[in-house]
This record gives sequence, structure tokens and C-alpha cells, in this order.
Amino acid sequence: MNNKSPLVKLIKTTLFSKENPLLLECGKTFGPIDIAYETYGTLNETKSNTILICHALSGDSHAASSYKNEPENIGWWDWLIGPNKAIDTNKYFVICSNVLGGCKGSTGPSSIDPDTNKPYGLNFPILTIGDMVKAQKEMLNSLKIKNLKMVIGGSMGGMQAMEWAIQHPEMVESCVPIASTHQLSPQAIAFDAVGRHAILKDEENGLPIARMIGHITYVSNDSMNKKFGRRLQKKDDYGYDFDTDFQIESYLKYQGDKFANRFDAHTYLYITKALSYFDLSKKHGSLSKAFESVRSKFLIIAIDSDWLYPSAQSKTIVKTLIKLNKEVTFCELNSKFGHDAFLLENQDLKDILSNYLEKSKKELTS
Amino acid sequence: MNNKSPLVKLIKTTLFSKENPLLLECGKTFGPIDIAYETYGTLNETKSNTILICHALSGDSHAASSYKNEPENIGWWDWLIGPNKAIDTNKYFVICSNVLGGCKGSTGPSSIDPDTNKPYGLNFPILTIGDMVKAQKEMLNSLKIKNLKMVIGGSMGGMQAMEWAIQHPEMVESCVPIASTHQLSPQAIAFDAVGRHAILKDEENGLPIARMIGHITYVSNDSMNKKFGRRLQKKDDYGYDFDTDFQIESYLKYQGDKFANRFDAHTYLYITKALSYFDLSKKHGSLSKAFESVRSKFLIIAIDSDWLYPSAQSKTIVKTLIKLNKEVTFCELNSKFGHDAFLLENQDLKDILSNYLEKSKKELTS
Repeated sequence: MNNKSPLVKLIKTTLFSKENPLLLECGKTFGPIDIAYETYGTLNETKSNTILICHALSGDSHAASSYKNEPENIGWWDWLIGPNKAIDTNKYFVICSNVLGGCKGSTGPSSIDPDTNKPYGLNFPILTIGDMVKAQKEMLNSLKIKNLKMVIGGSMGGMQAMEWAIQHPEMVESCVPIASTHQLSPQAIAFDAVGRHAILKDEENGLPIARMIGHITYVSNDSMNKKFGRRLQKKDDYGYDFDTDFQIESYLKYQGDKFANRFDAHTYLYITKALSYFDLSKKHGSLSKAFESVRSKFLIIAIDSDWLYPSAQSKTIVKTLIKLNKEVTFCELNSKFGHDAFLLENQDLKDILSNYLEKSKKELTS
Repeated sequence: MNNKSPLVKLIKTTLFSKENPLLLECGKTFGPIDIAYETYGTLNETKSNTILICHALSGDSHAASSYKNEPENIGWWDWLIGPNKAIDTNKYFVICSNVLGGCKGSTGPSSIDPDTNKPYGLNFPILTIGDMVKAQKEMLNSLKIKNLKMVIGGSMGGMQAMEWAIQHPEMVESCVPIASTHQLSPQAIAFDAVGRHAILKDEENGLPIARMIGHITYVSNDSMNKKFGRRLQKKDDYGYDFDTDFQIESYLKYQGDKFANRFDAHTYLYITKALSYFDLSKKHGSLSKAFESVRSKFLIIAIDSDWLYPSAQSKTIVKTLIKLNKEVTFCELNSKFGHDAFLLENQDLKDILSNYLEKSKKELTS
């Protein structure tokens, strides 16, 4: 049994075409579409051991392992995915793609529009989470994968997981949304709307502002208190000027600038719009109708300190599934870290997932 | 007894001078200073019936009544202040001034610097809440008022009230901070810092962004849910573009623009900096030391749905005062409306204040 994380490569596949495009939920058609993805582990002969990882707003396809020429660029869920890890790549074929509309290899607003030879920019069509899932489905079609052992993701990744269970009930064995929701609260819509407003006024300066706002919502007040409190940044007293005084200011500014260097402002606009539009109740008439035909098992994981997509929203999903007699397990993780806790190494999450996968395996073989 | 709210005038007084300036906490001296204020009711012969109202971040001296030529411009606390109201102007002489650094008549960054004949702008000195109180003290000196029946204010107004009780223990009979705190949490510092960042990048576009961020923090998620939910703004379905889709987006944008039309971006910078700097523990060594010498009674009022300056912060102040054997009454108002509830007509708040003032009067005469 191989315990070492083998190196990974970013793969790019072109799906759809101008003649055979993807029909988007907005009514427009779109193609061709490049999807960038990575795989870890080996697809078995019956193509029945696939786990699909769905990333969140600022994520990408690099969920685990590292590249040959960038050994320090470790995947964002590497503590969860790998040989003998909770999502064990000795057993499972794990695949993660950059979402449609992204800026990490998949076609998005920064891609070149073949019709104009210029980046799409704001001419890119408005996307939904459902559209992202349709592109992932086509990617799996190209690999002839017709069964998903599990679809799992945090935040927006969890929304994709739910869309998968709804769009393709025949394909998904287990659906695992973490720190996710079936619809953003008006407060969450509001934070994203201010971020978009800042970007639409000034793309360059707006993206760091949007990220700073977002970042505040991804962490808990409690963890901010512990990590920064009211401590000053490299000074003993207030500066009595408009430079940063507090560590929290300096940290946020750093996070904003770092993000702006690695992310596309237009992708931020499109993805946050997709988040705001995500509403399983609206789309299907009710949450109950949305989940009526699902056949997968559900493992719903919430984070107690998450105030962006609070636990109560996960519980609404759980209640709906229980009323529909679906198989659902709910777990509220204790974490001080707020919404983004799903990205941080967490023994409980590891144990829960490995046990859940082990149990699912036994059920299938018994 | 007169029940009608008499009309009110904005009064402007010039305090300090270049030769006899105000010593600011930053170490600089500053003067002359104009302070704009309004008064309601009549100062009694012994000058012992004054109640000082302190306004919050976006407030001004127009706390009650209306102007002759602007009958619809009603003061922001008019439901609380007036003849036979909770703060009864038949009994009390009520005064409210625009803070130093403000943009509503008092000297602030938009005022003309007499040395350059141009607005101070970012050459204005950094202020603290303590400095605002020093300017108010000089204003009361000019009126020969040496006793305050009560100092009361919400949010930043409450900080000024506490500064008053600490700076002038001999003057203040009752101190009433509402929805206030002795120090902002790192989360509250963070929201203000992002707002300042947006303004410093672009004053014109930044101020509405800062206000939108602020506004989200002034209301509760619950009240947003009730008022807006996920309802769309004048459309039946998503627009699939970057226009506003949701009522909450439209509302925030309106609030941002409206605020930018009536407020000075520099004042926003200076006042939020003063808020971030406000820290009674840091200034005095500990919260206990800060309140050690106060002689006023305290009525501390928190709002249960306030997540910006949460109830727990008020309770910390209450505990400290109790340990110091000070006379303190604590009340947590039930309101769905979050931080800004102190600005909204509230029967509990009216009853609490009128009873508190009545009781104080009886104690003094018995």
C-alpha cells in the first residue's frame, strides 16, 4: 500500500462546442468550455470508486498533493485526501475540477472569447451553481464515469454537491455538503452585493475590498479575538494617522492584496452572483420538492461558529430530508473558526468522513 | 404645561483659539473650534437641570424638534425628547452638539483651515472620543453649566457618556450608554477598517461602500429576513445580469448613496478611527481603573440583537461597576432590530428613561 502522496498534474479537457453548447440556466448557450481538473488515486475497472470534490468560492482543482515543479504548493484539502487519509486515494479515485466561470484553468470571464480574441470580461454569461454541475457532468461523461461514490464540498462546494444529488439521483451514492446552505440569507447576499458593488466601481481596488469583507464573514468573532484581539501591529501605541494600527487591519489588508494577486475580479463577480442566485426552494417550488427525487444518502455537516451559513440552515435541509424519508446523517462540528473551518485540518471531520466511507462500503458489500 | 415641540435653532459657538487651543489626546493642539448645538427646554436658575445628548457616528446636533423653515426635518431622537416625553423638556434643559470632527456645523475635516483657507481634509488632526468630550465641556463652560443631570447616548454617544463620567465625575449625576461598548471587538474594528480602506482608495465611491458595510452591521440578520428576505426588487425572476436583483441589494445601495449625499467622507474616516481607538481599558490601565473615580449613577442599556456591540460588552461594564460598588442599573432591551434599535421608537426605552429620571428626581428631593 502506497502511503506517499504521488505528484499530480493539472489536466485540461475541452467540452461542448459552439455547435453542441451547454444550455445555461439563464437561457443562453455556451461552448466550447475548458474544464481544468486533477485526479488522485486510480479509477477501478468498474469505474465505481469515484469521489467528486467540489471547491468553494476562492478554491480551485488543486485539492490535494503537489506539482512536480511546485512542491510547496499543497492542495487545499490535502489533509483530507491522499493515501490512507480520510478520503483514501488507495481506495478511491478522487477528482476535483475548477468550476465553470473560474480563473484557475476552466473557462471563465478571463478566458479568451474565440469570437473576439479578447477576454470575455463582463460579456461572459451569468452562471448558476447548477450550470457548474452541468459542466462537471460533461467532464465525467468524457471519462465515462457514471457513478459517484460521494460528492463532497464545503460552502459553495456543498451547494454543488446538493445540485448533483438533485440533477443526477441515479449517479450519486452519498452527498456531503459541509458548512453550506440551500439559500443565502439576505445578510449573506448583502455582504456579497457590497463586494460586487466595489468591484464594479473599480475592478483593481474593488477586489481586495470585496475579499476583506468576505474574509470577516468567513471567520468567527471569537477566533478573531483569540488570534488578534485589539493588539497593535508593530507599534506600542496608536499611530494617530490613517495607517494600520491594529493587527486585524494589517491582516485583512494582506489577505485582500494577496487574493487580488491570485484571483480574477470578474470571476469573483460571477461566482458571488451564482451564490446569491442559489436557492433550491425557488428553483423547485419548495425545498421538499427539490429533494423529492434524490436517491443518495446525505451526510450534512455544519460548523457551530459559522455565522455566514449558520447551522440552522443545515438543520432546515436535514429536517426536509427526514420528512422525505431520505437517509440523512447530521453532524455539527465544534470549531472556533467560523465558516472557513471546513478548510482547516480537523480530526473530527477526518474521523467522520473515513468512518462514513467505511460504513458505506460495508453496507454495499454485505 | 406646554405639550407642543417648540421650533429649534442651530446655534454655533466658537471655542478655544490658536493662542488657547484644545490639547488633543494625540498630543497636538487645535483651535479655534466651532461647535454647533441645539437646546430644548429651559435652563433653570440654578443651572441644575441639564441633560446632555451625545450622538452616534452619523448623527448630528438635531436630536429633537424641527426648524422653522424645515418642518419635516424632525430630530433623530424626537420620540424621546420633548414636552412631556421621556426626556421631558418641560422639566429639563436638553442640549445636543455635533461632535468635534463632524460635518454638521462643528469644526471638522471639511471646515476651512484658517491657515490655508482650504478645507483641512486629511490635515485635520486624529481625534478621540475623549477629545469630543473635551470640546463639549468647553461648550458647557461657555454656558456656565457645571452640572449634568444626565449624559446619554447610543453607540458612539454612549462612549462619550462614559468619557464624561470618567473625565468629570463631579459634574455627571447619571450616565446612560445605550448599545455601546468600552472597546470595539476586532470584528467591529475590521468592518470600519474596510470602510476606511475603501474611502482612502476613492473618496467618492468609497463612502457609499463604507456605509453599506456599516449598515449591514447596524441591523440584525433577523430583521433583514423579516424586512427583505430573498425578495426580488421589482422583478419576478433573476435578471441574469449585474444589476440589483434582491430588495436587500437595492436598499443597501440606496442607503449608501443617500448617506454619501449628506455626509463628509473625511469625517467618516476620522470618526471611525476614533471609534477604533476608544478603549477605556487601554487608556486607564484596566476597565476597573477607568471607572474607579466615577461618582455618577449608571443606567447601562444593551440591545439583545446587537451583534456589533453585543450585550456581553455592556455586561462587562456592568460587572466592573458592580465590583467597584458603583450604583448601576442594567437593562437588556428585546428588539429584533440590532444595533440601530436605539434610534427606533421603543416604548420600553421611553418608560425606562422617564422612570429613571423621575426616580432620580425623588431621590434628590427626599
